[in-house]
Amino acid sequence: MERQHISAAYDAELHALRQQLLAMGGLVEMMIADAIRALVDRDTPLAERVIAIDHEVNGHEVTIDEKCLELLALRQPAAGDLRFITLALKIVTDLERIGDQCANLAKRVREINTEPPLKPYIDIPRMAQRSSLMVQEALDAFVRGDDELAVKVCQDDQLVDELNQQIQRELYTYMLEDPSAISRAMKLTYISKSLERIADHATNIAEMVIFMVKGKDIRHTIA
Amino acid sequence: MERQHISAAYDAELHALRQQLLAMGGLVEMMIADAIRALVDRDTPLAERVIAIDHEVNGHEVTIDEKCLELLALRQPAAGDLRFITLALKIVTDLERIGDQCANLAKRVREINTEPPLKPYIDIPRMAQRSSLMVQEALDAFVRGDDELAVKVCQDDQLVDELNQQIQRELYTYMLEDPSAISRAMKLTYISKSLERIADHATNIAEMVIFMVKGKDIRHTIA
Repeated sequence: MERQHISAAYDAELHALRQQLLAMGGLVEMMIADAIRALVDRDTPLAERVIAIDHEVNGHEVTIDEKCLELLALRQPAAGDLRFITLALKIVTDLERIGDQCANLAKRVREINTEPPLKPYIDIPRMAQRSSLMVQEALDAFVRGDDELAVKVCQDDQLVDELNQQIQRELYTYMLEDPSAISRAMKLTYISKSLERIADHATNIAEMVIFMVKGKDIRHTIA
Repeated sequence: MERQHISAAYDAELHALRQQLLAMGGLVEMMIADAIRALVDRDTPLAERVIAIDHEVNGHEVTIDEKCLELLALRQPAAGDLRFITLALKIVTDLERIGDQCANLAKRVREINTEPPLKPYIDIPRMAQRSSLMVQEALDAFVRGDDELAVKVCQDDQLVDELNQQIQRELYTYMLEDPSAISRAMKLTYISKSLERIADHATNIAEMVIFMVKGKDIRHTIA
């Protein structure tokens, strides 16, 4: 395997890639928080802004993809960096799909805000906070090559799954008791499922990080 | 940009990568068909086999990932091949998640098969066939660099979305009319959503293919 001449410019490019991924992560974390705030506060214009901002996330994806390809083509990175860059390519897809989920979620919020509230929202905001934290920690684990943090993210997914199941059961009870609640309860079910999928994406990122760090024992090359 | 010395061994490796992706695609297409057959025929052992085979799909993912990394590290491919290999890395993730969806779907089928049938299944098998075809065509578009076929896949996604919405509306009617149907209708809702997500993954693959072919006008390098 060829060894790469490590230039200051190359290091700067890898650093910039990390920063771009974190910025994209920050954007989707904001989308999660805003979409749920739009639900709790019945703030439809905020839901609209979440839907609109998804384009920006897609733009980040294209930029980061191109950056990764450029690094692969021009720098021909050796083992550790190669694994980091190829994982960045995969992770950016997860982040983009989290953005999609947030936009879907905000569309449901927009619908639900036109109907009378079904119940106070307690568990859904809790689930959103936890999912958002998982996204943040999964990305931190990636840029730092921190497999312990990645393992924590995978474990937290269980808690989000349990919250989702609990919410689904509760909404099911509403549906059984009152057919006029079915439509709203179904929409909340979708919102809860979207949050669960966001947590799944974070878990996918974390699993890839563990593979990156542990799989080939390359931790020292990505620190 | 550096040009690569194209050896017969390298061509054979790229060919093998294409074949591995198609084999993985064939496996998830079979999982979709079997999961739905398990629903229609109330064949729970078949559902169990779909759940069990998901490990095999995960194995394919690891193998293909490693193959791509090896090609990137040892062959240092130039523009066209580089884009092909990095897309293979992304596509394999979609295929793995289609496998996950099939396993989830089969778990729902296992539950639903313990309850009396709610209705004859007509639209769900139709939706499954269409989603499966989309997966097949998206992969064909990828290995052949066929952007027209990829565009067709993206268009077909609309049809699957419409089928899903139609199924959701019908199931909602069942729920309104009979509270004892809510639990089964919810499970069928999830199955329909899983199929819609499978079609979304196929669409994601197709979109990436269009970008690969059109985005940088590199069609001639990947034929």
